Order: sequence, then C-alpha cells, then structure tokens
Amino acid sequence: MTALARSNRVRRTWWTDAVDRAGCTAYTVYNRMMLPAAFAGTDVDAAHLKRAVQVWDVACERQVEITGPDADTLMQRLTPRDLSQLQLDQCAYVPICNHDGGMLNDPVALKPRPDTWWVSVADGELRLWIEGMAEAGGYGVQVFEADVQPLAVQGPLADELAGRVFGEAVRKLRFFRYGRFAFNGTEMIVSRTGYSKQGGFEIYVERQADAMPLWDALFEAGRDLDVRAGCPNLVERIEGGMLSYGNDMTDLDTPFEVGLDKYVQVYDCIGGPALRDHVSNRRLMAVEMAGPVPSCDRLWPIMLGDTRIGVVTSAAWSLEFGCGVAIGMVDRRWNAGETVEVRTQDGPRKAVLREKFWR
Amino acid sequence: MTALARSNRVRRTWWTDAVDRAGCTAYTVYNRMMLPAAFAGTDVDAAHLKRAVQVWDVACERQVEITGPDADTLMQRLTPRDLSQLQLDQCAYVPICNHDGGMLNDPVALKPRPDTWWVSVADGELRLWIEGMAEAGGYGVQVFEADVQPLAVQGPLADELAGRVFGEAVRKLRFFRYGRFAFNGTEMIVSRTGYSKQGGFEIYVERQADAMPLWDALFEAGRDLDVRAGCPNLVERIEGGMLSYGNDMTDLDTPFEVGLDKYVQVYDCIGGPALRDHVSNRRLMAVEMAGPVPSCDRLWPIMLGDTRIGVVTSAAWSLEFGCGVAIGMVDRRWNAGETVEVRTQDGPRKAVLREKFWR
Repeated sequence: MTALARSNRVRRTWWTDAVDRAGCTAYTVYNRMMLPAAFAGTDVDAAHLKRAVQVWDVACERQVEITGPDADTLMQRLTPRDLSQLQLDQCAYVPICNHDGGMLNDPVALKPRPDTWWVSVADGELRLWIEGMAEAGGYGVQVFEADVQPLAVQGPLADELAGRVFGEAVRKLRFFRYGRFAFNGTEMIVSRTGYSKQGGFEIYVERQADAMPLWDALFEAGRDLDVRAGCPNLVERIEGGMLSYGNDMTDLDTPFEVGLDKYVQVYDCIGGPALRDHVSNRRLMAVEMAGPVPSCDRLWPIMLGDTRIGVVTSAAWSLEFGCGVAIGMVDRRWNAGETVEVRTQDGPRKAVLREKFWR
Repeated sequence: MTALARSNRVRRTWWTDAVDRAGCTAYTVYNRMMLPAAFAGTDVDAAHLKRAVQVWDVACERQVEITGPDADTLMQRLTPRDLSQLQLDQCAYVPICNHDGGMLNDPVALKPRPDTWWVSVADGELRLWIEGMAEAGGYGVQVFEADVQPLAVQGPLADELAGRVFGEAVRKLRFFRYGRFAFNGTEMIVSRTGYSKQGGFEIYVERQADAMPLWDALFEAGRDLDVRAGCPNLVERIEGGMLSYGNDMTDLDTPFEVGLDKYVQVYDCIGGPALRDHVSNRRLMAVEMAGPVPSCDRLWPIMLGDTRIGVVTSAAWSLEFGCGVAIGMVDRRWNAGETVEVRTQDGPRKAVLREKFWR
C-alpha cells in the first residue's frame, strides 16, 4: 500500500494523535477528514470486534446542522422518508435523493433540539446540497457543519463498557434511539447506532475539551474487556450487509435499487416524482466469491457466460465464513443461487449470488 | 507515513495504474479521487519540475458541467467575477462564495460549447452546491459531473513536449486560453493553465480510450527531455504563492482575505451583498520560517509575544531558497518584516512575515 500524504486540507480529528499512538496502520479520507481503516490488519481487527469491544474515531461522520423555523419543512423536502411520526429520541436513517431519485447520501438524522436537525452524513459533502437548496429556495434556516465529532463504541461488550462510563441507564437505550448522559461535567448525546452488526453506541462529542477525557475513560474502564482502538471494518460490514455510500451506491442508484424501499414513504419531496415512476431493473445482492480476494478498488464485472449481469462494489475475504464476501449490483432477472464469474484485477473468480448476507 | 487504504469509494483515475508503475510513493484524496502527492520525494520532485517537464494525473479536478438555456445566468449568480467580457477561448478563475461571502471553492471555468460550462473544481464537491441551487432555484439547466479527466504537462520544457505531441500551434496558446488540438484521431481541449509556476498545459481528456495513448505519447516524445510522472508539488506551489482550497482557504474566508480582490467585480450574485459590506481584518501572507519544518497537517498559531496574530495554513522546507516557506492568514494590523514565532506540533520556530512569495 502507498502512503497517505497528510495536509491541513485532510482534516485531523480530536483523536488523530491517539489513533496514531494506538497503532493505526492505514487511513482513508472521508468527508475530507482522517478515518482509520486498519490497525493490526482487517482480519485481526474483525475477529477482535466480534468478541470484545472497540472505540472508533468516526469524527468524519460530519453533522450538518439545519436550524431555524423552516428546518422541518426543508428536511422533509430532502427525503422520501416520512418524518412526521418520528419520536423525539429517535435516530432516522434518511435516504437523500436528487431530482432523478438518485442517492446523494444515506445519513442518520436526529433532532437535538426543536427546529434543529443534525444530519450525520456519509462521505460526499451533502452540506453543500442542503446549503444550496436553502439559499436558492429561500428557506428560513441556517445550514452549517457543526463541529460535533462522534466516537463509536462497538462490539459485544459495548454495553458493558458504556455502562461503566455513562451509567447503567445507557444499557436500556433501544435500537436507533438516543439519550443524554452525563460525562466530565457535561451531557452527551449517546445513540444506540453504529456501523457494525456487533451492537454498540455512538457518542456525539460537542467539545474538544471532552474528547480525550472520553477516549481515556473508555480505555481505562475497559482494560479487562480487552478494549482496543478500531474502525469500521471492511470484512464485518460486508458479512452483515451494511452498505457504504460511494462504494455500494452512488447518485446513479435509487433507494429501490439499494434495498431501501421501506424508507421511501412520501413522494412530495425532491426526487419524489422520479421515484414514483421508477422501474428498477437491478438490486444489491450478497455475492459469495472464491479467493483470493484482492483490494476491491474498482467495480468488478459479474459475468454470466459472456453477459455482464452486474458489478461487485465491495469485497473482502472472510476468515469466519471461509469465503470471499462481496456486495454486487445485479440485474433483477437473475436470482440467488446463480453461479457467476467475477472479474477482478487479478483474474476471474468463481462466485454465487446469494439472497441474504452472512449475518 | 501511514498507508492509504484503497476502496471503490476513493475513485481511481484512468492513469492510476500508470502512476503506480511510475513509482508514486504517496497519494492524497481529492474530490473522492486518487491524487498522487509524491514520487521520489517532494524535494527531488520539485527540483525536477523546475528543470524539465512532468506529466501529472489531475483527473481529480472534476468537471462540473452546467448545461442548458440558463447556464450563463446561473454561472453569473454563482460568482462575483464579471463573466460578461469573457472571451470564447478563455479560462476564468472564478471564486464561488456562499451567502456570507465565504469561499466555497476556487475553480477554473471554461465554456466548451455555447450554453455549457465546465467548472474545474478544487476539493470539496462543489457540484452539490450548484445542483442544489439549480434544483431549488428552478434554473433551466442540467448539472452533473462530466467524466472529463485532466492531465497536466508542467515544467520549463512543457512547451517543447506539448509541441511534439500536439503540433507547434499549441506553443502559441496564451496564458489562461485554450484551444482544440488533434490527438489520436480526436480533438482535445488543451489550456495554458496548471498548478505550478513553471508553465505548461492542462489537457481535458474526454474518453478513456484516449487516456493511456496520450500518457504513452507524452513519455515517448519526452524521453530526451527527461519527462517524468509528477504531481502538484507542495514546495513549488508555496514558493510560488499558489493557494490550495481546503488548506489556505475555507468557507470561513472571503475572496478579499485570500487575495482574490481583483476577481470580485459584481455584487448581484450569491454572497454579493455580504461582500459589498465586508470589512476584512486579515489576509494571506508569505511566511519565512526556520526549520526543520514538520508536516503541516493542522493550523499552526503565529505568535507575536503572547498574542496570536494568525495561523500558518501550509508549509514546507525549500531547498532552493534555504528556508521554510509557508502561507499564513494574518491579522492586517501586522505587516511584512515582523518577526514572529510559529508554533508547530514539533515546537516553536522563528519566522518573518513577507509581502511577496518567493517566485
């Protein structure tokens, strides 16, 4: 692997020094910010994530704050998901579409205060879309990137660790709900969310002064739990069928094509008319591949004989399942069980389409 | 330096394989795309750039295409630069501001056809701003990222090399003008632009089929010119005072604060009213530093005694000038000649404010 050149433009987080000290070996760049990608190696990291607990620097999940009297109106204009029934303590996965119904981002949004949304965006500067919309559409809102830096606690022992640091009440949080919990003389928003299937929390840190004390408290409290620094794990997230914006979907894909049908509920939004009329002829599927699996840094054609029936968008080798695990965008005419060939940069691999992911 | 984890999300270019083969040792990520950052090392790369000619993969300079009957109207709404006098073959450096006059990007724009603009954007997904504006403002345009991938030819021998590949006429191109030149049975837009002070061209490659033939032709024709693969060079660009969006300016800075006063000519645009009323109390300046100069991956406070009078935004050690070369955003009350201290992560460095850059 080649080095990542650092510069002021690729923003550090409140934990980058700690992440470096913890032995981060590879980074990626996400929303122009440093996101750790590996420590002991993706396989070792995955095995540890599945048995213990990790602390992840996910400050790159930038919070786009929309605040003002028109915040709710603008937010509902941005997404086909019906937000009218949202509970006060709920986090909402909200597809954001362009005029043609293409996915611009797949953030998780919550309302920290009335008339205020935090949109926790995936890679791709969604802020500019919302800010441009607010400007040209004359909405009574302010839109900016709030410097809130999330820290995730993920793994089967996440409840135990979070309970020790935030008190037992945090263990009662339901999935995709959030609450406010005391730490370091302040209150922090903690949600039961995160980019793994191992369970856990995301903590929305609002002040740099609290960032390293929180990191240190988690490592101190979790010593006997074998807590380690970690990061969103390529293998574990594909095994669990967790999608990655920019990898598994782009603005050329509609929510229907990436399996987000259930979040499309209203059509009086941007892209709504296009979504109403949309006939989708492809969908994301799990793909089981023979190895070895090289770095999936480009789309790999999925071939049925001489016919290209789709592309692999993400892939890795799973030690747990003893196969290559992959996500593919596939023509709807083909179903699970179909034997195909995946053309990687290192040569073809036998593969099978699957209905379900591994976890 | 830590590795860059590659994935499909961080997009490869038409030349990434060739760049790897040419010995790229570090990349950065720019507009979610691979941008080479070093080959033999920034110093060796800089010395070579100043005496010979380099071919740069700058495909990450994404072209936002604005096309339709309202393209000119929208474009003039986006920038305080007066576009009415632009010549047909002219490239325009156009500050793009938000509602408050803050810099959202500093692209170079040109019109490849009537009613069509290509906005060659710096890092930061400006497309979403323009697309959101077009959507909410009801402009009669389409906005999308055209898959045009620029390749730059830079260095004192760039004219000689381009002349051999595109014919002698290309040498007559004036600064910031473009023309169409034959290559490989097609026509390519070639402009006399680029992110160095050594002179040269940018070639707008519109078809992947032409990408490697052009790369190979440049290396074949330039063998006796010692042509090498290169990239925007940190040292050379600071010596020349070339600004980097995301490093030396963000949306918190106005065009006046980053020295782009001469491009602010009309106020009937987004941010125009804010710019008209703007009183700026700081400006970008050259800063000469004592060494050693660590990696400038964060803002470094510039101290005058106990007073923080600014921040360094970019810095490197210049072998040619025998000093640290840096760019700083400094309070206007202080002038060139002032002796200050720059606080790096490796300790303080003596420094002097300068009126002019080194080249």
